[in-house]
Order: sequence, then C-alpha cells, then structure tokens
Amino acid sequence: MPKQRIALLISYDGTDFCGWQIQKGRPEVSVQGALEKALSEICGEKIGVTGSGRTDSGVHATGQVAHGDVKSTIPAPKYREALNSLLPGSIRILKARAVPDSFHARFDAVRRDYAYYISSGAVPPAHRRNYCHYVRRRYDLSELNRIVSILPGIWDFTTFSAAGDQSKSRVREIFSASFHREGDQLAFRIGGNAFLWRMVRSLTGTVLHIAEQGGGPEELARRLEARDRNEAGPTAPSRGLFLEKVSYGPEYGFF
Amino acid sequence: MPKQRIALLISYDGTDFCGWQIQKGRPEVSVQGALEKALSEICGEKIGVTGSGRTDSGVHATGQVAHGDVKSTIPAPKYREALNSLLPGSIRILKARAVPDSFHARFDAVRRDYAYYISSGAVPPAHRRNYCHYVRRRYDLSELNRIVSILPGIWDFTTFSAAGDQSKSRVREIFSASFHREGDQLAFRIGGNAFLWRMVRSLTGTVLHIAEQGGGPEELARRLEARDRNEAGPTAPSRGLFLEKVSYGPEYGFF
Repeated sequence: MPKQRIALLISYDGTDFCGWQIQKGRPEVSVQGALEKALSEICGEKIGVTGSGRTDSGVHATGQVAHGDVKSTIPAPKYREALNSLLPGSIRILKARAVPDSFHARFDAVRRDYAYYISSGAVPPAHRRNYCHYVRRRYDLSELNRIVSILPGIWDFTTFSAAGDQSKSRVREIFSASFHREGDQLAFRIGGNAFLWRMVRSLTGTVLHIAEQGGGPEELARRLEARDRNEAGPTAPSRGLFLEKVSYGPEYGFF
Repeated sequence: MPKQRIALLISYDGTDFCGWQIQKGRPEVSVQGALEKALSEICGEKIGVTGSGRTDSGVHATGQVAHGDVKSTIPAPKYREALNSLLPGSIRILKARAVPDSFHARFDAVRRDYAYYISSGAVPPAHRRNYCHYVRRRYDLSELNRIVSILPGIWDFTTFSAAGDQSKSRVREIFSASFHREGDQLAFRIGGNAFLWRMVRSLTGTVLHIAEQGGGPEELARRLEARDRNEAGPTAPSRGLFLEKVSYGPEYGFF
C-alpha cells in the first residue's frame, strides 16, 4: 500500500485513559492505542502513531501532536472526519495534514506549552472535578507570578524529576511561565523546549507550596539549584494539567 | 425524630443524570433521587428534598438550591461534608445551612440566573464535549448583545415554551441578558424571576439563529410578540446550560 505521513492535532479528555502511551499490563485504554485502532481500521492494516510526548493518566490535551504513516489514497485532511467518526468523544482530531516523511512529532518539536488549572474554594464545582486541582486556599496572583518569574532560562530540573526518570540530561529551557486568572480559576501556563516526566505537576505543586509557606522566588531558585528530588514539594494531581500546544520549526509551519 | 429545615447549595454535572427530578420509568438516576438517598441514609429514615426548579437531562448546575427537613441532632453545616462523603463526585454540596421552617426553595426564589456556553470551531475540545454547545460559526459578540438587549422587562414567553408546558401564565420578567467572552468560549448569561420549561435553551437557539440570519433585536421582538411556538428557532442542546444562581429575599439573606 502506498503511504503518506500525516500529522494529527489531537484533543483528549484524559480522565478515562491510562495516559497517552500504550502500556503493557494496563487494562485501560490509552489514547495512542485508541488512535492506532481507529487508524488501522481505516487503513485495513496495523498503523502505529508516535506522539510528541507522553501524558500521564488523567492528564488532558487540547493540542497534542502525533504522526503516522497511512494509506495515501485518502487525502490527508479527510483523516480528521474519518477518525472522529470512529473515536470515542473523549478523543477529538482537530486537524489532519500531510507532512514530509522526515517529520517526527517528538524529535522535531521545538516547544511544548502546558496549562495547569487551579480552583479555589471549599468544594470544587461538580463539572470541573476532573479538570482542575481544587484547593481551599486563595492565592495571590502577583505573588505566584513573582515566584515563577525566575523560571525562564536554562535549568537542571533534577529537583522536579520523578523517581525512575531515565533522562540522560535533566537540563531544560523554559521560555515562559506565568499565572493568569481565567474566570474563577487560576491557570499556570508554562512553555519550554521539553519537560521531564511529571515535571510540570511537581513544579506546580512546589510553587503553590512555596506560596503557602510565604517563600519567594529565591526559595524556588534554591530548590532548583539543590538538584535534589527531596527539595520538591507535593506533586499536583494530574487532572489539572493540559498539554495545550506543541510547536515545530518554520519548515513545518503548523499547526 | 426532631427535625430542622436545611437549605443546600448544590453543584452538579448533569451529564449522567436524567435531570433534577425523580421520574417514573426513567432508569437513570436523578440528582434529586441521589440526594434523597444520601440524606435518608444519614437520617435513618426517608427524607424528601425540594429544588428551586427542575433541570433537564444533561443540564448542569453550579448553584441549585434545595430544602429538606432533616435530623436536628446534626448541626446543619455538617450536612455538607456528610452528604459529599456519600454522593458521587458528579454532585457536590457547596453549602448547607439551617433555614426557617417557612422557607421554600421554589416558592421563595425571587431570581434565577443561567449561563449558556458556546464554543466555536470545527471540532469541540474533548474535555468540553459535555459542557458546551459547539458550533462551526464564529459570532460577533456586539451583534449578539444588540439582539438580546430587548429582553430585560416583562414578556409573554409562549414563543419559547415547550410542547406540553402546563404553566398557568407564560409571563416572566427578565432582569438581565448579555453575552460575554470567557476564554475561547461565549457565555450567554440571563437572569429572571422564573423561566418556563426549556425556555433558556429555546431562547438561546433562537438568538443564535437570528444572528446567523443577519436579523436584529426587532426580529427577536417580533418572534416574542407573536406568542407562537412556531416562531422559535432550534432549541440549543442541554449540555451547554448551567443553573448558576438562585436568589432569595433579604429575609433569608443567602447564599
């Protein structure tokens, strides 16, 4: 079968999935597994997809990107509708486009943007229970922004790595990090070249912890410079995290 | 058992319920049914609750109010935690408080506020699929606000009543009606003394329809004045609708 490489822009509700990646011994469905199943059905043979990176169980995406090599007799943009008709409502293909065979969703990504949502109040609103971290305390927006103002730049993120992290290097570059008020929620938006496993959740939990303790940006810098996992605060729950955007070089010029 | 009347401020995700009200022959659980079951378990006898009004299947609430007569040996505010520990996560009690025996959640309500959420774009984000109406078209905010600017006041809402509506009078007073941009969504907020069954959804669908057809406020007024259900446009789907707030007179002074 003649093949073409397509890239998919994907939104998913991570609540009912074991995460992006197919995992042995996990009976729940993965987003990747559901996508491969639908693509294989369309193409009549087993098709694999490669994502820009993993997301954990419960983590959502509004802009995950993946590539796969599919039947070239179907125009690339048609894969959007074809996939959406087969996929559960919890996975939506926002866009499908043809890309050069050299395109790689993970290795060619130059920037990832995440958002972490926080609701304050004694009890979370029911319809947001799977989409935010709810905390009793109310935070001061300018204080949170003062703490994260030190993040842009190149850091060794060992402090915010997870047990079992096998990355060769834990040095990552952060391009931007700031808190915003969105309706009655806070959103922590962070963009960087790449992130370690669970790094955004560990960093978010630690920033909130520092704010609660009355610490400032120097306390976050101290913990980062310690390069010691014991200096991380609590890891914020996965339900508040959204992979919002993955960016590629101008030679790919999308999405 | 000595009794006290309590009022509950309730948030629910309407997705998996047949609506607020217990309905014969509907196997799905109603919000009212789930609440009565939990309250009865706490009190050791059958307890009924009365809501400020019904919401349909799929309609959500961030501020429904209900009352019930419960065991007075438990301080009223304690019912919040006790109920939340028994209820599914899709129903959350935000507040519980003692009210005079004369308080009635429905008859004493002087104002109801609803919000209807609309997402524009070819495909809805997966995590919002149950919480908004998604439409391909993008609307002009000021044009929508121009159309609904005629709503505040007293109108006969027969045009926006549902088949089978048994209300004695279809005259209702609207206090405010306006569209707002909230992140990448539009929210239509409307407050009035009371609403007919499905009135907000019918009105919302008609306003969007008028905007699409290039009609203005005079077209909405014409349809209202016709007092004819055939003049209503499509009914907007229940998943976009939230009962946000129910207000009571100053003698009750909450929530």
